[in-house]
Amino acid sequence: MKTINTKEQNQEIVLANHPSGVPTIDTFKINDIDMPTLKEGEVLLKSIYVSVDPGMRGFMNKGTDDAAGNKFQLNKAITSRTVAQIVAVDTTSNNKSNANNFAVGDIVHGRFAWQKYQTVNIADIEKVDPTLAPISTAVSMLGIPGLSAYFGMLSIGQPKKGETVVVSGAAGSVGSIAAQIAKIKGCKVIGIAGSTQKIAFLEHDLGLDKGINYKQVDDMAVAIRETCPNGVDVFFDNVGGELFDAVFANINEHARIAICGQIADYNEEHPPQGPRPMHTLIKKSARMEGFVVYDFKDHFAEAKQQIADWYNNGELIYKENLIEGFENIPDAFIGLFSGENIGKQMIKVSDVA
Amino acid sequence: MKTINTKEQNQEIVLANHPSGVPTIDTFKINDIDMPTLKEGEVLLKSIYVSVDPGMRGFMNKGTDDAAGNKFQLNKAITSRTVAQIVAVDTTSNNKSNANNFAVGDIVHGRFAWQKYQTVNIADIEKVDPTLAPISTAVSMLGIPGLSAYFGMLSIGQPKKGETVVVSGAAGSVGSIAAQIAKIKGCKVIGIAGSTQKIAFLEHDLGLDKGINYKQVDDMAVAIRETCPNGVDVFFDNVGGELFDAVFANINEHARIAICGQIADYNEEHPPQGPRPMHTLIKKSARMEGFVVYDFKDHFAEAKQQIADWYNNGELIYKENLIEGFENIPDAFIGLFSGENIGKQMIKVSDVA
Repeated sequence: MKTINTKEQNQEIVLANHPSGVPTIDTFKINDIDMPTLKEGEVLLKSIYVSVDPGMRGFMNKGTDDAAGNKFQLNKAITSRTVAQIVAVDTTSNNKSNANNFAVGDIVHGRFAWQKYQTVNIADIEKVDPTLAPISTAVSMLGIPGLSAYFGMLSIGQPKKGETVVVSGAAGSVGSIAAQIAKIKGCKVIGIAGSTQKIAFLEHDLGLDKGINYKQVDDMAVAIRETCPNGVDVFFDNVGGELFDAVFANINEHARIAICGQIADYNEEHPPQGPRPMHTLIKKSARMEGFVVYDFKDHFAEAKQQIADWYNNGELIYKENLIEGFENIPDAFIGLFSGENIGKQMIKVSDVA
Repeated sequence: MKTINTKEQNQEIVLANHPSGVPTIDTFKINDIDMPTLKEGEVLLKSIYVSVDPGMRGFMNKGTDDAAGNKFQLNKAITSRTVAQIVAVDTTSNNKSNANNFAVGDIVHGRFAWQKYQTVNIADIEKVDPTLAPISTAVSMLGIPGLSAYFGMLSIGQPKKGETVVVSGAAGSVGSIAAQIAKIKGCKVIGIAGSTQKIAFLEHDLGLDKGINYKQVDDMAVAIRETCPNGVDVFFDNVGGELFDAVFANINEHARIAICGQIADYNEEHPPQGPRPMHTLIKKSARMEGFVVYDFKDHFAEAKQQIADWYNNGELIYKENLIEGFENIPDAFIGLFSGENIGKQMIKVSDVA
């Protein structure tokens, strides 16, 4: 085993309380912890970029683990998608493994703990290809958000040239990529977001046909109708709630609705009520489909290559909202629910060695 | 032009009032009317079998026509799917047409007025093939209900051998066929209905694995869970409302939900509210799809042949609830909402000549 080449104080951020509604700073607690000891089959990782996503809110509720073991436990470190660098490897296991060989200095990603340093089983890390795009994108544009946008838009939304596509949460990490993919496919694309800055981002940076600021509109259903005189063929929904209802009121026959996220509801304690969509689904022969990105895992490699190609060709732009400092992870997470972010929220914890 | 060979008093049934809630006998009015005069391009029809369906309720509300011209107008004859016999043909048009030639005595079907006799444009009638199955089935098992069951179950539900399928309204005209098709495909099939007689029909006549009488169950979600220990892969929903919620609470990953009808809601004045399904759709990667049977019209002929083959082989049974007498059409329609019917509600208006 290699030895650890740092004397830095290790730290973790744990779930201090199950939040009720939007999490607050008291939901979290930072602890000083010992540097972990490398065991057989493990690597020692130094966190570089930590990703925070609204969907994590659901794992903070009280209750038993879901099937994927996603619930966070009190006083245990929270986990999220992270880009890290290998600082030590248990080489005995590496030799036994038929998987990738990992070496000190390699950049990897996975779902890791909010810890500056941690040991992780080799089976739970994946190599980052630094030639595709900047390494932070391994957990964003080329990670779950980008892949969600890709498969949600292409496999579920199935946009055809000339169709009208509406994306809610369009300035976010998933929505901004989903909207641009629909533009690449030749659609008229309308993005919904909640600030003047975001609308400018949608219209000027992403080149969408129109951005609608839902906070400045009295009747969203009317605004959608006026902006989409031919109706809505594809609705990529990251938000849910009344925003969903307003777009849904304007769907065309054979509309496809990809249910990607429901940020409006993540902080609700009870299942939210709303108008039942069934009648409209019948009347419009429309389809509404939920998905998780792992449904498409057999096609991840080709999707990453395609997104990277669009990015490197300049057909798709990607924006990160980067905050520095391990101790600022909780603030960055809480900020997701204020509706202020443009682009993917990331925290830079340390530099690549 | 041939002359009309009957002296019978012609009659029509009109919409007398827009109903509020469940229609009553005052919703309708029977009028004596003149025998119509055959004009160019028309046939004179004598109604034989009239079909009534819950979905017609929506057309009785006040308001403008929908795109398909489906709204019934006050003091105009109501229309529904009907099997009729040609009693006269305008032969000049027949010669001009490239379509089927029609002759006196032919059995045809279409969406006709609630009139004993009426003239209809040749473009609006379709021949019934009496060799496939009894002619009344042209508007039931081989008509919209049967085709809705066929395409809703096979194209949207996509049941695979060994999967668990739940059908609501399973004793009705659509549900009974949908459930049997799932049995033919090798599924475990659970039917939901609302009377002891219907449950007996589902279990003994249709051979479903289990019938659940929702009127005798305290908690439908629990009843479904106990009956479907492996969860629900396909849900063919004819009912909606809280029954939907109970089945939906038990869906499996990658479940397919065919939204066929929503009889629970047809008499509601406002769009009904309920739990939003989006979170569960995401969590289960599930699909919920509405349809109207005309989405599949290019495949009607093969579907009719397949259903008729199953019927003639004894693999699929079909039950009609036949009432006699033109004047009893309103009662038959109103009866649809009492939940008492087993099988397709039909009214026999006259004999084939």
